Amino acid sequence: MAPTIGVFDSGFGGLTVLRALIERLPRARFAFLGDTARLPYGSKSRRTIARYAAQSAQFLVREQGAEFLVIACNTASALALDAIQQAVPVPVLGVIEPGAAAARAASRTGDVLVVATEATVRSHAYAAACGTHGLRAIEKACPLLVPLVEEGWIDHPVTVEVIDIYLNELRAEAAAHNMNPDTLVLGCTHYPLLRRLFEGAVRPGAKVIDSAESVAVAAVELFNGRAAPTTSGVAGETEVHCFATDSVEKFERLGSRFLGRPVGHVELIDLGG
Amino acid sequence: MAPTIGVFDSGFGGLTVLRALIERLPRARFAFLGDTARLPYGSKSRRTIARYAAQSAQFLVREQGAEFLVIACNTASALALDAIQQAVPVPVLGVIEPGAAAARAASRTGDVLVVATEATVRSHAYAAACGTHGLRAIEKACPLLVPLVEEGWIDHPVTVEVIDIYLNELRAEAAAHNMNPDTLVLGCTHYPLLRRLFEGAVRPGAKVIDSAESVAVAAVELFNGRAAPTTSGVAGETEVHCFATDSVEKFERLGSRFLGRPVGHVELIDLGG
Repeated sequence: MAPTIGVFDSGFGGLTVLRALIERLPRARFAFLGDTARLPYGSKSRRTIARYAAQSAQFLVREQGAEFLVIACNTASALALDAIQQAVPVPVLGVIEPGAAAARAASRTGDVLVVATEATVRSHAYAAACGTHGLRAIEKACPLLVPLVEEGWIDHPVTVEVIDIYLNELRAEAAAHNMNPDTLVLGCTHYPLLRRLFEGAVRPGAKVIDSAESVAVAAVELFNGRAAPTTSGVAGETEVHCFATDSVEKFERLGSRFLGRPVGHVELIDLGG
Repeated sequence: MAPTIGVFDSGFGGLTVLRALIERLPRARFAFLGDTARLPYGSKSRRTIARYAAQSAQFLVREQGAEFLVIACNTASALALDAIQQAVPVPVLGVIEPGAAAARAASRTGDVLVVATEATVRSHAYAAACGTHGLRAIEKACPLLVPLVEEGWIDHPVTVEVIDIYLNELRAEAAAHNMNPDTLVLGCTHYPLLRRLFEGAVRPGAKVIDSAESVAVAAVELFNGRAAPTTSGVAGETEVHCFATDSVEKFERLGSRFLGRPVGHVELIDLGG
């Protein structure tokens, strides 16, 4: 049997990470959990996020036999990676560090912009991770973008305008710090759906880093040093099992936008609380 | 001692209801609970919302001695009023029925528009309540408006544009049903902060009903048939105690916008989950 990779998010935005993982590890078995009863994590405290994320990780490992966890949630990666690593006995990969490493590879000026949720920005996890790579980062919370994506306005003039407003504020702040940013990190799993709009809004030559893609690349590297599921699984369709703690209907309806294909049946589970 | 009125919301939007209550019952004692650890209720299932709301109501009655509850949350009023009434032994007033009654008083054509959260609309609670008053109602979920209010864009061109888009869609749907609406019900406690924008966006002569105000008026009527706290309390400042299950800092920071004055200290409580 192919190794099981557990993928966890507070909602279904993390399906963009699952999509990037499936493209690279088509023969692995995937168990995806969206803790939709308790989303959004982005506006909650560190203590609460850590408790929710640890429970979710334990479900994937204990109930689904995950041998490896990808935390496809920027907020949980920023605020609860330690708590998750303590809660389960398998390797855990968060989304922040791969995003920062990709920014390091992309940036020539060493100055980067980061857009993310409120809690991710408040944690300054991207700024810290960028700092360890010798980058300077300015972060900005963009709380309107998740609702715009979920409303389906992913190619809408209002969304273009909102992104322009956020990026102008961010660039003004960078200029005030005498920074010369040439790279933009999309630090939320909903934002890859707005990638084209972001690419149209950054200055010519600036790079847009999708942290969903970055963590998938990092997961493949980690895997290839281990069980190499890219070649050990059986041929055919990737095995994907989706679980949610609430709103299964919404997950099934909107999830395909993020996964790039139908999500199929989503099983409702109860983590309590 | 003045009677205690418990006011409950999933977040701090219900402070617009508390504000309307304080204006009318300045001598009552108020205990407000925002279940901020588990918001937004608007995207969750009926079962989950009922469980959360019942726990919150029990806190206000058992721990805070509330003799009367106002459910200042459209979603909980729409989906969990029965569950709350079963969970506590005091009178419980929801926000839906007073909003529908006010629409009945305002409308001459008998056709009304309702804007609310996704779960409130999905429940069709406003349409049902309007129906019992002989009104026809068309409802629309406007999921971008809460984030726009919380971002502080309450007088922003983007918000004007989003409201225009939503209302145009709503009017087109009404026209397709051969309806002639002359009244708009704001079915979410965040929306009173956008009241001026809504008033600018409806057709000339159309009325805008604020369900926060409507429930306060209904509460005063109910009270005056009971303990009449408008006259029984001591003179001076209204006594207001605020509680939240998470994100106390955000509550304190944003709450004053909704309450129209500083919210003061917000006490963090744990309802489990």
